[in-house]
Amino acid sequence: MEPAIKYRLIKKEKHTGARLGELITPHGTFPTPMFMPVGTNASVKTMAPEELDEMGAGVILANTYHLWLRPGEEIVKEAGGLHKFMNWDKGILTDSGGFQVFSLANMRDITEEGVHFKNHLNGAKMFLSPEKAMQIENDLGPDIMMSLDECPPFFETYDYVKKSVARTSRWAERGLKAHRNPATQGLFGIVQGAGFQDLREQSAKDLVSLDFPGYSIGGLSVGESKAEMNHVLDFTTPLLPEHKPRYLMGVGSADALIDGAIRGIDMFDCVLPTRIARNGTVMTSHGRLVVKNAKYAHDFGPLDDNCHCYACRNYSRAYIRHLIKANEIFGIHLTSYHNLYFLLHLMRQVRQAIRDDNLLEFREQFFEMYGFNQENARNF
Amino acid sequence: MEPAIKYRLIKKEKHTGARLGELITPHGTFPTPMFMPVGTNASVKTMAPEELDEMGAGVILANTYHLWLRPGEEIVKEAGGLHKFMNWDKGILTDSGGFQVFSLANMRDITEEGVHFKNHLNGAKMFLSPEKAMQIENDLGPDIMMSLDECPPFFETYDYVKKSVARTSRWAERGLKAHRNPATQGLFGIVQGAGFQDLREQSAKDLVSLDFPGYSIGGLSVGESKAEMNHVLDFTTPLLPEHKPRYLMGVGSADALIDGAIRGIDMFDCVLPTRIARNGTVMTSHGRLVVKNAKYAHDFGPLDDNCHCYACRNYSRAYIRHLIKANEIFGIHLTSYHNLYFLLHLMRQVRQAIRDDNLLEFREQFFEMYGFNQENARNF
Ligand SMILES: [Zn+2]
Ligand SMILES: [Zn+2]
Repeated sequence: MEPAIKYRLIKKEKHTGARLGELITPHGTFPTPMFMPVGTNASVKTMAPEELDEMGAGVILANTYHLWLRPGEEIVKEAGGLHKFMNWDKGILTDSGGFQVFSLANMRDITEEGVHFKNHLNGAKMFLSPEKAMQIENDLGPDIMMSLDECPPFFETYDYVKKSVARTSRWAERGLKAHRNPATQGLFGIVQGAGFQDLREQSAKDLVSLDFPGYSIGGLSVGESKAEMNHVLDFTTPLLPEHKPRYLMGVGSADALIDGAIRGIDMFDCVLPTRIARNGTVMTSHGRLVVKNAKYAHDFGPLDDNCHCYACRNYSRAYIRHLIKANEIFGIHLTSYHNLYFLLHLMRQVRQAIRDDNLLEFREQFFEMYGFNQENARNF
Repeated sequence: MEPAIKYRLIKKEKHTGARLGELITPHGTFPTPMFMPVGTNASVKTMAPEELDEMGAGVILANTYHLWLRPGEEIVKEAGGLHKFMNWDKGILTDSGGFQVFSLANMRDITEEGVHFKNHLNGAKMFLSPEKAMQIENDLGPDIMMSLDECPPFFETYDYVKKSVARTSRWAERGLKAHRNPATQGLFGIVQGAGFQDLREQSAKDLVSLDFPGYSIGGLSVGESKAEMNHVLDFTTPLLPEHKPRYLMGVGSADALIDGAIRGIDMFDCVLPTRIARNGTVMTSHGRLVVKNAKYAHDFGPLDDNCHCYACRNYSRAYIRHLIKANEIFGIHLTSYHNLYFLLHLMRQVRQAIRDDNLLEFREQFFEMYGFNQENARNF
């Protein structure tokens, strides 16, 4: 049987080994490295699918935990799956729900069988196992699914992480067995191991032996420094098969996208662009800009004078600031639009730099203009 | 000098006298009778200008009181006026700010000179006079402006309303004198007089003698019954010149739009479609529908099976209900889109019925299907 998800490696950048490729899914083929916008509740916040399409999004995320709780996977299944439910005919990826169980839910009790917890909406007792995650994700119907993992804190003890990694590998194998639709949905295994090289090696070895159609790298961007994250990537991506896609979970700051691509990552996702947008903050080629600040009240220029997005072509900082101050939803729609466009455009630039074998020069110029080279640079 | 705003009467419906016409503005010519979406803070809530354009909106409203307070008319002026500030190149109408001063502000003190009040945002003392309203509206730069009026309660005493109407006429004359841009902005006078026929007559007579390019009918849809409103329209619209546009302020329920058109009204506006949309309520050809109700959880049909709007073509009641329950902004965007489309489409149907001389039959069919003919029918 052909796997549902395939990866085609087109070329490697000469100096870094960064990969230019294609992710081949049942809902289209998309260029990588790619950034995937997050639609937690089956909606990328404030955005119409047509807008995501016009800005070049290929795969978007939805969160299994949130959709399991509300509206319930049976309603999404009854609608004909997530693509029909949310009117998005390109790629969709769901996580396993594990990350939210560990970060949002209360009274967690992790056993070999799975995780008992009380949900954060009404406190009801629930149970998530590798098999339950598969059932929900099969019902939701995304192109790409994640197997249930535990994402331990980066600075957990070696002993704890070792046991956790071993259990995540056993859960991955159980997920693979429970997966009902391998011809139409691709299941990724998730490499864990915090900052410990031998544990990352063990995790990768376990998962690669199970022959997943793609591999995720989890447990990063959870409080460690950028240098620590890059260090983990340096020794983790070489452990993964060259002809399968590699997904770095939960990473969405511009510097980390570039540095991840340099280390052989193909796929990224993060709520960062839409979350900071709702707070009136935008990413620009000259760095972060808090457009709701008073100094932009009379600024009739665009959010970013190097950006060609819908927001920057049609609206001023002064107008967007006014809308956000007046609690007008269209204001955070414009900042969300811009931030998503900014990261999707950044990935287009990264792909071009791989084609041109000048990714390090691009990185240097981008970092310099953004301000990442300054002392005490903020990370987005 | 040519007035900034003109009206062309195309035909009258044979049985009712309802008017098919064109409103001619510096930003385009638009068919009437028309419904005008309200963009209080220079944004029709959740809507992009392109979306309003594609659904056939011609003129939109903005509120002088709100924009005076935030961002301040000087910023809008500096941006080049409201059209440029908010990226809308068709018609814009502003009210005078008076209605909000009387309904939102505190500690009002009405004198012959104007109104002293404390604003609702920070309690600062402010003063609105006919001249100040003109200065703000001239700075905002809409196509159509309103002169400052007092909108007394419908059931105020005759003596109070009589004095109020006389003052509103004197204010209208002062506004006309203070208006700096009559070649590019048209100022409408507002007929008041509550439910008193002789006071409406006096008000209309005063204002018509000042030769405004258009006339508004104020003081309706403020708590009186539909029958009382229609009765006032029956004796008020005949007082207004045939070759000037007539604007019924603050009216946006489907029945009132049809009954207003029948009584010779050309322009309507109301926050109703977007306000109820944010509460999960939509207007459909079969009446009101509260899509967030549990009974729509598994309903995969459109909001209205007779509607061809973007929301109804692409999304189900089940999905929109889910978004609203999950506090996803895209949900209230879809209900807002549908409700605005519904009223704009209703006005297209009304114009066609005037062309076809069958407006009363259209009314009967529409009322029957909507449920307005039922006992205890809700009014939207
Ligand atoms: Zn932009
Ligand atoms: Zn519709």
